Formats: sequence, C-alpha cells, structure tokens
Amino acid sequence: MPPSPQSPRAVVLLSGGLDSATALAIAVKQDLMSCATLAIDYGQRHRHELHSAERVARAAGVTDHRVIRVDLRAFGGSALTADITVPKDRPAGAMNDIPITYVPARNLVFLALATALAETLNANAIYLGVNSVDYSGYPDCRPEFVRSFEHTANLATKAGVEGQALRIVSPLIAMRKRDIIRTGVSLGVDYALTHSCYDPVIRDDEVLACGHCDSCVLRRDGFLAAAVPDPTRYSA
Amino acid sequence: MPPSPQSPRAVVLLSGGLDSATALAIAVKQDLMSCATLAIDYGQRHRHELHSAERVARAAGVTDHRVIRVDLRAFGGSALTADITVPKDRPAGAMNDIPITYVPARNLVFLALATALAETLNANAIYLGVNSVDYSGYPDCRPEFVRSFEHTANLATKAGVEGQALRIVSPLIAMRKRDIIRTGVSLGVDYALTHSCYDPVIRDDEVLACGHCDSCVLRRDGFLAAAVPDPTRYSA
Repeated sequence: MPPSPQSPRAVVLLSGGLDSATALAIAVKQDLMSCATLAIDYGQRHRHELHSAERVARAAGVTDHRVIRVDLRAFGGSALTADITVPKDRPAGAMNDIPITYVPARNLVFLALATALAETLNANAIYLGVNSVDYSGYPDCRPEFVRSFEHTANLATKAGVEGQALRIVSPLIAMRKRDIIRTGVSLGVDYALTHSCYDPVIRDDEVLACGHCDSCVLRRDGFLAAAVPDPTRYSA
Repeated sequence: MPPSPQSPRAVVLLSGGLDSATALAIAVKQDLMSCATLAIDYGQRHRHELHSAERVARAAGVTDHRVIRVDLRAFGGSALTADITVPKDRPAGAMNDIPITYVPARNLVFLALATALAETLNANAIYLGVNSVDYSGYPDCRPEFVRSFEHTANLATKAGVEGQALRIVSPLIAMRKRDIIRTGVSLGVDYALTHSCYDPVIRDDEVLACGHCDSCVLRRDGFLAAAVPDPTRYSA
C-alpha cells in the first residue's frame, strides 16, 4: 500500500549513494512513511551524486525532492571539496583512521538542515543512511552522535517545545554493506541509479566509478559479499 | 594585551546585531581569544545585517571574517525569510509565544556551520550571542539547547574523537538587554555599527530601523533601561 497523505511524514537525506537510497526504500516501503527528500549541494567534487539523488527520489515515487546549497568549500579541509588527492586502494582495515575525505561536521550540518525542513513540513522523522560498521572512520557516523543529535534537535525546535518528538532514524547504522545491499534489493532499489565514487571519470558522457577510492572499495566488496551482481560501471 | 597567534582560538557567530557584537567583544577583550567571525547569509530580508556584521568584525580587529550562504528560503515558514508581514508593537509580555519571525532550526543550522569552521581552524570554542531572558520566544535560544548542542558537536567532530573538547560559549544567555548593553559599552562596542531591526526602511541611502518590530522594541527598551544613549536611527 503506498503512503497516503495521512501517513506519518519523514524527511530523508539523500546523497545519491547506495546507503541513502536504501534508507529511503526502508522509509517508504517498510515503514510506510510519506517522504520528502533532501539533497545537499555542498560544493562536492563528485557532483554527479546530486543527479543520482534526483533519480533515486523519482524512482521511489517521491514528489517533494529538494536541493539546498551550502558551500562548505568556504571552510576547506577535505579531499571531497578541495583539490586534494583522493586516496586509493586502502585496505578496509586501514579505514578506521579519520581520512582526508572527511568533510568537517558534514552530517551535523546536513541533519541541522533536515531538521529545519522537517519543522517546516511538520515531519516527525528524519531518515539518514549513516553506517558505523563499514563507516570509513567518520566520527559523525557513530550511533552516539545520532542519538545526541536527536536530543538536541528536539530542544532546538517548536516540535520539541510542543512535545511532538522528532525521531532521527538511521536504519543502516549497525548493518554490514552486504546486508544493506540485500535489504535494498528486497525492497526493489535499483542500485544502477546510485553513485558512490569519490573520484569518478567521465567517458563518452558516462560517469564511471574509479573502483579504487574507499567508497568504491566498500561498495564493490559489498556486492561481492552479498552475491548480488554489481551494476556499477567502473573506469578500470 | 591583544590576542597573540598562540591565543586560544574561537569562532564567533556574528549576525550584525547588538547581542552578537557584544559576544564578540567579550571573546576578544575579556576572554582574550583569537577570533574568526562567521556571518550566515540565509536569505534574510533584512540583509543590511550582513554589512553590519562585517563592520562589527572590522571594528573588533578581526582579520578572518567569513560569510557562508545557505538559502533557508528554500524551506519557507518564517516572516524573516518569506514575504510575511513582520508583527509590530507587541508588548514584551506577548513575546513568549513562538513568533512568525522564528526561522526553523536557525541556531541549530548556524551552530552546525560554526562547528564545521571551528574544526577546520582548530578552534576550541564557539561564541554566540543567544539570550534566554529577552529572547522573543525562540526555542533554540534556551540554555538546555546550547548545552545539548555542545555535547552533540563533540561527538560529531574529530576534536571530540581526539578528546579536545569544543566549548559552546553563550555569555549573554542569562543577561537582561540592559546589562548586555552596559557590558558592551564597557568593552568599547560601538552599537551604531549594529543593526537589529527585522523590517528596516531605506531613506536617502540610509538604513533606518522601524522602531516597532520585536527586535526594535527590545533594543530600544534596553538602551532606556541601561541609561545609555540609543545610537539607532529610527524611521519614525
């Protein structure tokens, strides 16, 4: 049954990647939420993810997809926004240090913006696809951060004052990549629409994943472990 | 003694208004912090406050003043960003309800951006001029929100992971407007540089305060109660 206008409302943060596409599918198909999606244009080098976010939202039947621009490049400090080389072929075990692809306080900024939209739309949940297992060493992907943000967001908003709690839902936080992929496949996610690579190559108007950045390594290993055919187009 | 390059570093959120100018003076002159200032261009109707923020930063000797643009108009819902009439001449006692000038989750978004900048600059404090006494009914000006945000920000960032705590400092939170003004005057703040009005009038290239919005009423009453001459130019 598709969500009706009376369904509980959620804002889903959509990056265009595999994880957030799965979080959206869980919100729509499993939790039967009526969803608005929010993509953040933060000056990321891998801007194709914004197009992927739009495609993923459309495929999930979302009619309220928004893009908000906040130029985190003004702050510098990350290979994802500045002209710093993206590291390649790091073994998964080396991903526990905070890497150069870390964007300072990114999930904090994204969740704050999602909270503003949730308040405007009277939504009572925010979904995000963070993951603390294969999480590549980002501090703002940890469960204790998500729980603490939820408390803070309720203190920051009218909803909190009026006792209508806002929930921050991170359904993937304790899942392995292979289980995220299996869940998404069972919910009909078309992962060919998603984009994970930090350093893609454009060839003949096609966006190809590098296959070697942390994000590609985790994604490729995930499809292998899930025994699901990998729809990603790699450059090499 | 002016702050040296070795002084503890702070990011000060600067709106261009009276309160944040005072918070900056406290950070620089009282706490001897080396300060970078951050103004947020969020699509506010009263954009003169961005020029005021720049003037206030320069007058305080700040050499690193940044403006970051995030278009909260995309979310709607406030008289400060949308084309909704700003209420006038409300008695101070009526300001405890959440007013139409409330911008959803504004301080949450601003603090998140300040946290990103603090992390980039290795600053260990963020100053902001929120006030819970004459606070005009905004939920995100309450002390419990500020304390909770501090906890969340430390979980969100490298600093928190590495045990270097980030402090959120709100020196005005329990002060009356008249005491804020007296403190600022004692620290040499030139309040003629600041701008508080939600609905200013431009006349002969001069920005005049309306004198009747919540912000003007609080400011005018504050100067009266402080027995400090009010440098504000009012339109009527």
